[in-house]
Amino acid sequence: MQMNDMILVSVDDHVCEPPDMWDNHVPAKWKDRAPKLVTKDDGSNLWVFEGGQIPNVGLNAVAGRPPEEYGMEPTALSQLRPGCYDVDARVDDMNANGVLGSLCFPTVPGFVGELFGRKAVEGETELAITMLRAYNDWHIDEWCGKHPGRFIPLAIPPMWDPERMGEEVRRVARKGCHAITFADNPGALGYPSLHDAHWDPFWKACSDEGTIVCIHIGSGTRLAMQDMGAPIEIMIAGTPITLFNCATELVFSEALQKFPSLKIALSEGGIGWIPYFLERIDYVHHHHHRWTLHDFPKGKKPSDVFREHVITCFIDDAAGVRNRDLIGVDNITWECDYPHSDSTWPQAPEKLWASLAGVPDADIHKMTWQNTTRHFQYDPFAHIPKEQCTVGALRAKAKHVDLTPRVGGGGKKPSDYAKGYCTIGDVVKQMAFALSTPFDSSKGGR
Amino acid sequence: MQMNDMILVSVDDHVCEPPDMWDNHVPAKWKDRAPKLVTKDDGSNLWVFEGGQIPNVGLNAVAGRPPEEYGMEPTALSQLRPGCYDVDARVDDMNANGVLGSLCFPTVPGFVGELFGRKAVEGETELAITMLRAYNDWHIDEWCGKHPGRFIPLAIPPMWDPERMGEEVRRVARKGCHAITFADNPGALGYPSLHDAHWDPFWKACSDEGTIVCIHIGSGTRLAMQDMGAPIEIMIAGTPITLFNCATELVFSEALQKFPSLKIALSEGGIGWIPYFLERIDYVHHHHHRWTLHDFPKGKKPSDVFREHVITCFIDDAAGVRNRDLIGVDNITWECDYPHSDSTWPQAPEKLWASLAGVPDADIHKMTWQNTTRHFQYDPFAHIPKEQCTVGALRAKAKHVDLTPRVGGGGKKPSDYAKGYCTIGDVVKQMAFALSTPFDSSKGGR
Repeated sequence: MQMNDMILVSVDDHVCEPPDMWDNHVPAKWKDRAPKLVTKDDGSNLWVFEGGQIPNVGLNAVAGRPPEEYGMEPTALSQLRPGCYDVDARVDDMNANGVLGSLCFPTVPGFVGELFGRKAVEGETELAITMLRAYNDWHIDEWCGKHPGRFIPLAIPPMWDPERMGEEVRRVARKGCHAITFADNPGALGYPSLHDAHWDPFWKACSDEGTIVCIHIGSGTRLAMQDMGAPIEIMIAGTPITLFNCATELVFSEALQKFPSLKIALSEGGIGWIPYFLERIDYVHHHHHRWTLHDFPKGKKPSDVFREHVITCFIDDAAGVRNRDLIGVDNITWECDYPHSDSTWPQAPEKLWASLAGVPDADIHKMTWQNTTRHFQYDPFAHIPKEQCTVGALRAKAKHVDLTPRVGGGGKKPSDYAKGYCTIGDVVKQMAFALSTPFDSSKGGR
Repeated sequence: MQMNDMILVSVDDHVCEPPDMWDNHVPAKWKDRAPKLVTKDDGSNLWVFEGGQIPNVGLNAVAGRPPEEYGMEPTALSQLRPGCYDVDARVDDMNANGVLGSLCFPTVPGFVGELFGRKAVEGETELAITMLRAYNDWHIDEWCGKHPGRFIPLAIPPMWDPERMGEEVRRVARKGCHAITFADNPGALGYPSLHDAHWDPFWKACSDEGTIVCIHIGSGTRLAMQDMGAPIEIMIAGTPITLFNCATELVFSEALQKFPSLKIALSEGGIGWIPYFLERIDYVHHHHHRWTLHDFPKGKKPSDVFREHVITCFIDDAAGVRNRDLIGVDNITWECDYPHSDSTWPQAPEKLWASLAGVPDADIHKMTWQNTTRHFQYDPFAHIPKEQCTVGALRAKAKHVDLTPRVGGGGKKPSDYAKGYCTIGDVVKQMAFALSTPFDSSKGGR
């Protein structure tokens, strides 16, 4: 097997929503209240919803920009690579990167639709569910629907009402969507914790429909921003491992015992720490269960529960690949993270292939596409002949795709930072600036 | 090589301070204000200092109790195994476990002397430094001094004053102590962060003296107690990995660049996650440094900086041992964690030997004693012939040590817990109870 023979399906990419996304899915009566993309005096874009601002921040959409210009500054849609928001351009970018399939997380609504959830808390539940369903319909019918076989649809749930969450799971399942987001720490968003029976209607619907619950980093647990004087790398490096706690919560939760077929995907969590994690939870259970009185049915170990229920993924993670036997090679999937700053686009095949040195073909296929197609009920070959799905075949179709970095002049000099390098405090200041400066609503809209 | 041929030196154990520890080291004028062990009406013991209560909590000293009786209830000294607080009994327990050497962290003063630090903040700096020095003198002269070759002394620093920290590093170094504690997140204790030049006098003294800075889990970063309804296992399982953030902070800090010979030990952090950690920090540096403008001298990678400065340790960690080449086998040390609940006492050699299957003798020696003796300037063989230092030789001297569990009747029934198993909330309630119930000071003292 050669690099070009791989089939790559990514379980974690991101869509930067296009300005027209609300056009076809919001009923006339609610149209005026849909989120709108506006242009500020400085030329940057931001979304406005119910008076609140949602800036585009740079690290969310840096694919194709020179690394010198990455950053958290607010950006204009015109600075972004069209693949961030235009699905035809996205498929071109996937082809150029040899990627067959992609599951895309939302940006503007938040990972679990917090934008709408906040309105529900204020009593505007009909506005909230209307916008949320419009989002899911756009995502499934337009973003994923336009290029059959190329996307795995992913819905967002109405977090404020577990019964409605269950209904939405069943509604989108009828439209062919078998993945939905959830928060790694719902308590941090003001909801009951993972250990509350409150969520049972949601778990039950997911279990009934075979819908995968996708828990993305940053969907509840705060990032490590405790020290404003610390290099920003500290926040970035520690983000994937924030799912360690959620993974523990899941394994020891009653939810997985009540719903034996429930499956959870840890999105952008990485895999290199999982062997340690599994050994640790088994150790803790073994050492402590006789006084804590917490036990698992049928003499299972915590690591058994994890392997039965949890799907992991990685971008580029040689230590995890080396130890795939300790993780469970049937539960490892791959991700590209386009267009975020951790993405390996457009060299994903080259980076991945280097990490796969010495791995048998059967294990490569499991990790790069077979596990994903099985878990997510995703059948690309019903739409595209398999021989056209490989890295080599897809790249051959993308000769016209321009991979030249889009230079925008957004880079920083050491003198731009008080310490000569970017700290967490510098990023917080940039974010606060983006949120606080006014925009001219007369220039709004697209 | 057989199990009995191993030489075991533990870099993380704990002393439960004996009631008489202040007798010989507090000047007469301050004697009345030294911490005192008192007995409550329910028979449990607690320490009192300046009107504040410091209960003994069970998971801190469970060695030799039946696992059914572990818990966070406050305990009486009489319920503890004497090896917790009596150094002769401790050496017996080390022998019974085949352990030659031990570095012991404090209990009553807190990992970094917070008990005294709080008084310094209130203006009582002379009281604070007097008690802190008395503690260090007792620890070095009595606890470690009574059995030459068996202990690696470990001081606590006057965190409220970096100049005084430097002085204390140099003072205890003259007494042969080359290890001192520090907090994984000093900001959480109210001090400046790791990224503040504030600490330079301390780092400089440690660097000059070859003193290892020992950063223990729980020395700043809060434990995962976000959800009162969650099984207590979640808090326990996630504690060692709390050092992930500190490890990142260290690598990207200016301190390690300013003081190239400074060495830090991550105490009770485990090692199985280190391969992932090193790959992650290199990935983040590679992907982001062109916009963050943070760089390392001489083209070093973050993983190089880690291996030059940071010493890791493990209790029982097969995944870490398997991947020791990715960690750096010269920086891995072993620990026993006596008498805490994660300890493998008294079967440490058996548990460890199982994790070492297939490891060459040279690597076993490095991880079990050679790295520790080198880094910590610890030379047991100056006091004890090497052939008497092995697991087999030490255990042969411990035939008289009674290993029968001490049954105390402290176990719980499922009906004692609202959920049928112990939650984080149950433990928090027990702790609050221990702190809030009054004690009869007329019965105080030993």
